[in-house]
Amino acid sequence: MLKRYLPILAWLPHYHRRLLGADLLAGIIVTVMVIPQSLAYALLAGLPAVVGLYASILPAVLYALLGTSRTLAVGPVAIIALMTGAALSGVATPGTPEYLQAALVLSLLSGLMLAAMGLLRLGFFTNFLSHPVIAGFLSASGLLIAASQIGHLLGLEASGYTATTLVANLVGQLGQVHWPTLALGVGTLGFLLASRRHARGLLRRLGLADASAALLARAAPVLAVAVTTGLSWQLGLAERGVAVIGAVPSGLPPLTLPGFDGSLWYALLIPALLISVVGFVESISMAQMLAARRRQRISPNQELVGLGGANLAAAFTAGMPVTGGLSRTVVSDEAGAQTPMAGLFTALGIGLVTLAFTPLLYHLPIATLAATITVAALTLVDIPMIRQTWRYSRADFSAMAVTIILTLVEGAEAGIISGVLLSIALFLYRTSRPHSAIVGLIPDSEHFRSVTRHEVETLSHVAFLRIDESLYFANARYLEDTVHELVARRPGLEHVVLICSAVNLIDASALESLDAINARLKESGVTLHLAEVKGPVMDRLKRSDFLDDITGRVFLSTYAAWQALGKPPE
Amino acid sequence: MLKRYLPILAWLPHYHRRLLGADLLAGIIVTVMVIPQSLAYALLAGLPAVVGLYASILPAVLYALLGTSRTLAVGPVAIIALMTGAALSGVATPGTPEYLQAALVLSLLSGLMLAAMGLLRLGFFTNFLSHPVIAGFLSASGLLIAASQIGHLLGLEASGYTATTLVANLVGQLGQVHWPTLALGVGTLGFLLASRRHARGLLRRLGLADASAALLARAAPVLAVAVTTGLSWQLGLAERGVAVIGAVPSGLPPLTLPGFDGSLWYALLIPALLISVVGFVESISMAQMLAARRRQRISPNQELVGLGGANLAAAFTAGMPVTGGLSRTVVSDEAGAQTPMAGLFTALGIGLVTLAFTPLLYHLPIATLAATITVAALTLVDIPMIRQTWRYSRADFSAMAVTIILTLVEGAEAGIISGVLLSIALFLYRTSRPHSAIVGLIPDSEHFRSVTRHEVETLSHVAFLRIDESLYFANARYLEDTVHELVARRPGLEHVVLICSAVNLIDASALESLDAINARLKESGVTLHLAEVKGPVMDRLKRSDFLDDITGRVFLSTYAAWQALGKPPE
Repeated sequence: MLKRYLPILAWLPHYHRRLLGADLLAGIIVTVMVIPQSLAYALLAGLPAVVGLYASILPAVLYALLGTSRTLAVGPVAIIALMTGAALSGVATPGTPEYLQAALVLSLLSGLMLAAMGLLRLGFFTNFLSHPVIAGFLSASGLLIAASQIGHLLGLEASGYTATTLVANLVGQLGQVHWPTLALGVGTLGFLLASRRHARGLLRRLGLADASAALLARAAPVLAVAVTTGLSWQLGLAERGVAVIGAVPSGLPPLTLPGFDGSLWYALLIPALLISVVGFVESISMAQMLAARRRQRISPNQELVGLGGANLAAAFTAGMPVTGGLSRTVVSDEAGAQTPMAGLFTALGIGLVTLAFTPLLYHLPIATLAATITVAALTLVDIPMIRQTWRYSRADFSAMAVTIILTLVEGAEAGIISGVLLSIALFLYRTSRPHSAIVGLIPDSEHFRSVTRHEVETLSHVAFLRIDESLYFANARYLEDTVHELVARRPGLEHVVLICSAVNLIDASALESLDAINARLKESGVTLHLAEVKGPVMDRLKRSDFLDDITGRVFLSTYAAWQALGKPPE
Repeated sequence: MLKRYLPILAWLPHYHRRLLGADLLAGIIVTVMVIPQSLAYALLAGLPAVVGLYASILPAVLYALLGTSRTLAVGPVAIIALMTGAALSGVATPGTPEYLQAALVLSLLSGLMLAAMGLLRLGFFTNFLSHPVIAGFLSASGLLIAASQIGHLLGLEASGYTATTLVANLVGQLGQVHWPTLALGVGTLGFLLASRRHARGLLRRLGLADASAALLARAAPVLAVAVTTGLSWQLGLAERGVAVIGAVPSGLPPLTLPGFDGSLWYALLIPALLISVVGFVESISMAQMLAARRRQRISPNQELVGLGGANLAAAFTAGMPVTGGLSRTVVSDEAGAQTPMAGLFTALGIGLVTLAFTPLLYHLPIATLAATITVAALTLVDIPMIRQTWRYSRADFSAMAVTIILTLVEGAEAGIISGVLLSIALFLYRTSRPHSAIVGLIPDSEHFRSVTRHEVETLSHVAFLRIDESLYFANARYLEDTVHELVARRPGLEHVVLICSAVNLIDASALESLDAINARLKESGVTLHLAEVKGPVMDRLKRSDFLDDITGRVFLSTYAAWQALGKPPE
């Protein structure tokens, strides 16, 4: 029981030395890799760079205690940083104490929501974020994040969280491009893109084992940070107008208390909910993928608790909303992390950096960070998935397209909410106009299929109508129309058999309609039968009077109805 | 084509003398019957009594031109009057010109919405008002209407459109009960209730034919109005403090122009939508019932146009929102109306009354009208339906209960909207946790049913899993869990056959899940097969790569899979 709510108790007692070595190494590698990321994502959210470091310490510890994934690494991630920035800039001005305070409140609300969803077992709620909506949102966010970095790469002050404000800001300042910054930014960007494509192969050809080559290739951003920071320091780029990180305060994260301000909390409720859900969906799908590969188990509801704990930790240690991050988790996995102990080592490592090494970051150019963010963001843009969805289903594609367009133009909130509502509306619309098929017997079998698609035998005085949908209020009247058109079209009809193999539910509205159909068929001298009614549906029908009133019978199988109602033609 | 949009062209050219007699008689009878009703419903909506007469003239003519029902009688009805009063009292004070103006705007908006829904063929939209929600709303409204008349029966000024305000108003004035009014009101109420129960039988025993007895029994309210008006006039009840209708202006309805006021229109949008939808649903179900009995056809979309036209007519002739009324239609039907010409005669009759006979209405006591409304309203309360829904489905009942409670406490708008949203949420919740069953072969057949409900044959190395729901975003992850639990529970498993007979849709999210299931089963050495995939679903799957990637086969029938994957046990 305790293990269920405190998963660390499941692995810590069995911890041993061999695991320690692997976890320690992974912890050190991840520490080095995630420092530039953490700084960059804090800036993306409009927060001081050091907030990214703070959010990588205690939140990671809390997740290690409460989470069920063995390898997930928790901290600031690009998509959540973008959503955080958009939400905060709606309620405060970047650089003010109110902005910092709002970040704490957002973390707190997000943490409370995640923990509550987990404890109340409401994880299923997140399923309503359909795959096309997520994929669309990620692609649009990737574009937005990349666009938001163009200003930093050009040495301009162009911020914003929608495509329209970003473009307007950029266009207005195009005359003031700062060429040294541009050179530095584009150079770093080129280096990162080239190393992403070629570094692994190159390192392998230099004799490295594939695993080490893959890992080392991922260190390209660290190398870029080190080299450009060194250059910036040696050449005094800061004095020449290249923006650098500047003074990052030293010391452990301060303890903070998110204040209670009714209107601020209210304004941040929806953004916090969306940040929670999006962060959770991203995190859990990654965690499940890794767990499946290692044959471990993830508990979705406990994951909610783990991420909730991490966000609460962020709220009380001057942080920002966090979740399981793709790149830091992949690095941790490839570096050989075996247990959440690796996450604890990373937290310790970043704690040490924050305590003693922040002066080294002073000369780090913002343009370098912008280049690393841009490269990471562009991987979110998933063109093949967009193309595949278009090919598979126009309905799914339209939900995706609406999500993409509204995310770009109106922001994350409008994009996700519209996408989810449209998905639901399309599903309801679809089920409200169900497909139905007249079926016949496939020769030499007891199997019935559509008369329009298969060579089948039929009976002229019996119509076998297969309804391909649960019967509920939205389509109850549609069913009435379908049956009456059928009867009007075939005057010689004596029996209608409704095949209910695809009817998973008959609600009270549909029951009324069945009653009406039965009564009207009776007036026309046609007998109504049911076939293949499933157990749970039958149980429910027995609670009504319908089974007493129906003019015909309820057959176990369509074939039994075929045998009872007519001889098969010779 | 023209006939489709102007249904009068379908029957007028074939009109002949024999029909004329029947229609004229029905028209006269309905005129007499609906005058008290029309006055009463206008008062219920907080409007001058004469508005109810105005709304029975031109709107009825428009419906006769545009509607597809041969017998539907259009005018003010109780439920719509209640909703109108609730909506108007939110934006203006009864008795002011603004209140009258708001009534016109409400009629206009409602007319525009109905006509637009009809012309855009959006009639299916109204299907989302489920049967339990409608039944619950009608019952609650019946109670509310009856409660709103208690004040009039007691001679008090207790108005309101929610149970809480009504009770509060009544309790505060209980000391001021006006005893003569109470005596008159309760006397009329007793007479109406008794005649509803016994008049028909009594008249039959006096020698009348059943049809005439039924019709004459319905004249009880007219008799009550005549007698109490006479009494009131003779005894000078108005001077003794009994509230009477007073001066009703004579003359045809004035032409009115609903003014454009942005904020007023905006405030009335939702009420107008709900009035349109509720009015339409009530009207169409009655029209369809009558049409089925006479073997005529109703076109739902053209009905929307007809009711839209009627409401537009109300907006321009000092009226109020109207729809097809149950009691006036039943009277018209029983009086032998054959065509919409009867409706035209009624309109003419009420026009004559308005022109010349309104002085006769001066002494009509309000308490008499209150008694007729109360009796009509109590028939809306459908206890058997509530009990039946409770027995049939707790989900449907909860939607009904929420509708009833919120309609009583918060009003019509809150009640209907919550009921509809809850119905949709319950449906989505249900489909997000689909039922699935392990099935086996029923001996001596090719039919497969659940192993827990039937005596069936099974194979130890093949699991036949029937999924009882369309696969879409809300349950995609649930399916993954179901399959993996199944495989974890049965170590000897070599094949999983997903029986898709109840799968009417596989959306892009579910396709992702199927891909994931296929990949993970492959890693565990289990082969995935599909069976009984329907035509439309298969068409769609062919657009994806899934059919190339699946480890097993797609069988036409489950029996084919059974034959291919294993010999049946001896």
